[in-house]
Amino acid sequence: MIAFESKSPGARIDRETNGRIVEDLLRRLFPICRSITGEGLRTTLKTISEYVPLKIIEIPTGTQVFDWQIPDEWNIRDAYIKNEAGERIVDFRQSNLHVLNYSTPIHQKMTLEELRPHLHTLPAQPNAIPYLTSYYKRDWGFCLTHHQYLALSPGEYEVCIDGTLAPGSLTLAESILPGEASHQILFSTYCCHPSLANNELSGPIITTLLYQYLAALPKRRFTYHFYYGPETIGALAFLALHGKRLKENLLAGFVVTCCGDRGSFTYKQVRNPNNALDRVVLHVLKHSGVEFKAVPYFPTGSDERQYSSPGFDLPIGSLMRSTYGQYPEYHTSLDNLDFISIDSLLETLELYVDCVYALEHNLRYENLCPFGEPMLSKYVSCPRTSYTKKSRDIVHIVAESSHPHIGLTIA
Amino acid sequence: MIAFESKSPGARIDRETNGRIVEDLLRRLFPICRSITGEGLRTTLKTISEYVPLKIIEIPTGTQVFDWQIPDEWNIRDAYIKNEAGERIVDFRQSNLHVLNYSTPIHQKMTLEELRPHLHTLPAQPNAIPYLTSYYKRDWGFCLTHHQYLALSPGEYEVCIDGTLAPGSLTLAESILPGEASHQILFSTYCCHPSLANNELSGPIITTLLYQYLAALPKRRFTYHFYYGPETIGALAFLALHGKRLKENLLAGFVVTCCGDRGSFTYKQVRNPNNALDRVVLHVLKHSGVEFKAVPYFPTGSDERQYSSPGFDLPIGSLMRSTYGQYPEYHTSLDNLDFISIDSLLETLELYVDCVYALEHNLRYENLCPFGEPMLSKYVSCPRTSYTKKSRDIVHIVAESSHPHIGLTIA
Amino acid sequence: MIAFESKSPGARIDRETNGRIVEDLLRRLFPICRSITGEGLRTTLKTISEYVPLKIIEIPTGTQVFDWQIPDEWNIRDAYIKNEAGERIVDFRQSNLHVLNYSTPIHQKMTLEELRPHLHTLPAQPNAIPYLTSYYKRDWGFCLTHHQYLALSPGEYEVCIDGTLAPGSLTLAESILPGEASHQILFSTYCCHPSLANNELSGPIITTLLYQYLAALPKRRFTYHFYYGPETIGALAFLALHGKRLKENLLAGFVVTCCGDRGSFTYKQVRNPNNALDRVVLHVLKHSGVEFKAVPYFPTGSDERQYSSPGFDLPIGSLMRSTYGQYPEYHTSLDNLDFISIDSLLETLELYVDCVYALEHNLRYENLCPFGEPMLSKYVSCPRTSYTKKSRDIVHIVAESSHPHIGLTIA
Repeated sequence: MIAFESKSPGARIDRETNGRIVEDLLRRLFPICRSITGEGLRTTLKTISEYVPLKIIEIPTGTQVFDWQIPDEWNIRDAYIKNEAGERIVDFRQSNLHVLNYSTPIHQKMTLEELRPHLHTLPAQPNAIPYLTSYYKRDWGFCLTHHQYLALSPGEYEVCIDGTLAPGSLTLAESILPGEASHQILFSTYCCHPSLANNELSGPIITTLLYQYLAALPKRRFTYHFYYGPETIGALAFLALHGKRLKENLLAGFVVTCCGDRGSFTYKQVRNPNNALDRVVLHVLKHSGVEFKAVPYFPTGSDERQYSSPGFDLPIGSLMRSTYGQYPEYHTSLDNLDFISIDSLLETLELYVDCVYALEHNLRYENLCPFGEPMLSKYVSCPRTSYTKKSRDIVHIVAESSHPHIGLTIA
Repeated sequence: MIAFESKSPGARIDRETNGRIVEDLLRRLFPICRSITGEGLRTTLKTISEYVPLKIIEIPTGTQVFDWQIPDEWNIRDAYIKNEAGERIVDFRQSNLHVLNYSTPIHQKMTLEELRPHLHTLPAQPNAIPYLTSYYKRDWGFCLTHHQYLALSPGEYEVCIDGTLAPGSLTLAESILPGEASHQILFSTYCCHPSLANNELSGPIITTLLYQYLAALPKRRFTYHFYYGPETIGALAFLALHGKRLKENLLAGFVVTCCGDRGSFTYKQVRNPNNALDRVVLHVLKHSGVEFKAVPYFPTGSDERQYSSPGFDLPIGSLMRSTYGQYPEYHTSLDNLDFISIDSLLETLELYVDCVYALEHNLRYENLCPFGEPMLSKYVSCPRTSYTKKSRDIVHIVAESSHPHIGLTIA
Repeated sequence: MIAFESKSPGARIDRETNGRIVEDLLRRLFPICRSITGEGLRTTLKTISEYVPLKIIEIPTGTQVFDWQIPDEWNIRDAYIKNEAGERIVDFRQSNLHVLNYSTPIHQKMTLEELRPHLHTLPAQPNAIPYLTSYYKRDWGFCLTHHQYLALSPGEYEVCIDGTLAPGSLTLAESILPGEASHQILFSTYCCHPSLANNELSGPIITTLLYQYLAALPKRRFTYHFYYGPETIGALAFLALHGKRLKENLLAGFVVTCCGDRGSFTYKQVRNPNNALDRVVLHVLKHSGVEFKAVPYFPTGSDERQYSSPGFDLPIGSLMRSTYGQYPEYHTSLDNLDFISIDSLLETLELYVDCVYALEHNLRYENLCPFGEPMLSKYVSCPRTSYTKKSRDIVHIVAESSHPHIGLTIA
């Protein structure tokens, strides 16, 4: 962990205040069973709105969004598998990962053989419950540890998924912090995973802390746009609302995810290689002293898949710690509160703040006296006589700073 | 010789049918005394028109063609040198190379000393009759082997060139195979050499087989244009007729020559280096397994000199086996039917067919769903659950194929 | 020294005539006490106008020139420091470098201690009088050798600077030699230094010889513009008059200075790297056999500072022998007539003439027969028969010269 004191933009992070917000959000949000629609998602956004003034948007089931349609809304109250003794051997109340996300309701008795095709495990990680979904194909199922699975004995089981999958709406939220320019910087994060800590709760938490940091700045050069909502279908809906304007105004953006584990950093670069964001983030990473690697854009991943699709081609990167799919705890019950740490989250926050700082200060100076040299003696105290080396140095500095190609360009 | 079976586009070549056409054309065309005008040329085009529906064009003597003028028409019936014993010691009926092509008529007795300035030989290749022409400077002469020349004894000789050089017309021929697009691909070949096999009969023969191949295709993307006629002055006349349209429509073209000997392949590239044709031909050559070399455009050679002149600057390449001027048999009586082989011709044909195949299939795919990802489950059978590796691969393929820079670009 | 005879463009330099002009100008101009304004400058320009028809321009004190203002006019009649015995121990009549250029008038007795802050020496070069100025800060002073300074004994001194610093005008001069094109080539040289030979008299002398050379040419492709006047403020005034037109028309230009010493050559390149002038000068230097180095533009130096300022960005280089500031005699009394030589000046002239020659002959040929090959036999005597190597060579040459990218491009 880098000491905050050693770094000037990062020094502005108040470790105590931010640490307290992290603890509060983890405690309240981790237990919720979220999905791409439903009350879990709504409760999550309502909780975050205590820190970020969110505008909540509901999009009805059936609405066409590009090549997609908003699906039915999913809600769940309870789910279990009971053995013949009436014991809950698989229990949604112990882990909301036990239910295949978006399962259709069921309440029925069946033999082990009938049940088996609906059970999902990870034989290679026999203590982990996998996290699985079936958003667009009607199905029901249970996820359990492989040890649980192996312990099942033949017999009759009572299977219950007490929920609804019916027309409703998809919920997403946004917030805008205006700046001097209408050029936007986007932070996009998703809130559709149940009790999973690094992927995904770390993303909404960092985004929330960034909002607080930016809101407290005395002034902002750029306008900051924040998206919270479901992955994929929510990002598509957000693009349906704002894509055209983002194409005109978006200067840079981040998909904020996988920010809390103890691994080293990975920056997934923008699809279109010639952009200011990659230069800014790599500059920050190089000067931060943290261990990191930069990877070029690849077409799988998170919502950068939508933002970077050829029709939008937005300059979106993703600054993560361990990358989704690359660490064994990913999408299992092992991606829990022990897997992340407040220190790791705050270190990631610090780097995001440094990136914002670099973007805000990335300026090109304009020469106000381009025709001939400025008359130096009007501006600086020059030595009287012409032979000293000193006066030449001053000329040199002025002439250099009048060069039109200094600094990174934004546009 | 590469087995036809091993290569998929080449596999469409019917070796037997094509071989039979080659044999027929070689037998009937090789003996004819062709020149840049005259009945030899007309008979040749008429013979080819049994395989290719040719439009014959006659351009009168004296017509201005760019910097040139159509010359008088040349026809020859017989030519010989008789010794004092009345024996034909040099005989046009034995080889039409014996007469300086475009010789003015003569019938006269003269001493060896008077005759000598009109005799042409190749001292370094004493068994070969050179092939020489004098199209634009009135002259007469005989070409003979250096052995024949050395055997001449002093005395009186009867010299006869029984022909005409008088106003008439220049003959050229073309054929067009329409395709879905008006963009053209040109095959240009010349028919103005007398009994010479590799340079030139191999060119018209390959062009004829290509016509047959293309005519038999169920559909063609591009329009194919075929030129048969005299080299240089004929290509200029063809450009006078079509140059402006070719400048707008020509996608690629070949000067087809030197296709029949047993040497390895040479591809003479397009003058203007940035073009799709070179990429296509080099791609085909690299994947064909044949031995080849690519040479950049040079301003001598065949009719690419006219097509590539700065005013036209057409994308014309030339795919040959041994290059004109680079093999010792070139422009001598040694470039005869023994110097070429049907197998070599058919192998060359196969590569031309492969080039046509690559040009026809050189497409850029358009993304019909550029805004956001396509919803894969609408199009392909996806695994239900989200954790398998397989579904990621499908996303990857779709995302890749929506990339706007796949494939060679045509325009 | 390179023999004039060995080089063809340089061969046109008449060594005797040019040598006589050099001698005349050195003899008459060296003694004059010049400054950035005043009668010394006027007399200098009047003398040069015997060789170059100069248009004299006077710009009144106070005129705003970009970021600058034309200062008061400075004139001086006499200056000295007398010791108690009434002897002139520092005497303007012995060297006009003794007075701080642009000193305010003074006539006063004072102690050595009062005088000392107004005395300037070069301890490291104890036999040299430094050349110093104070154009824009009112001050008075004397420059003397360090030996003179050390010999001063305590006592009372009579200090006299008999001159004026009062509203008047700044003088500059220009001349234009029209050519076929309105595109201009500029020679800019400064005449504001007192008795200093290499920097600066060599500059106006070379410029004057160049004018004479160019005026005598039977025809000129380009228009030549000559500037003589004070450095910096004069060049700025010249740009205020002509900058907009030069931005449109200037093809190339030189700041002509430091041309007469015996050192090797330095070419200070144009600020904007992609330009024809650098290619021309480096081509000339490489082929001249002289020792030289090329240095990239740097933002100190002479009037290229004004011409190359971002608002103008003119293609101006500077071809010198030893560079200002880089040789120990620079801006001291050691930069005198012994430090330069007529041979060195004429050798520099020769290189400038070669550059002019290269610029004038830097042509792009236009193909008058771009459609198809030209019919060679109409233009050159071709061998009759087609098999000789010779005819191919001719085709090659013609085809090459019709290539549109021959030669350096001007624009």
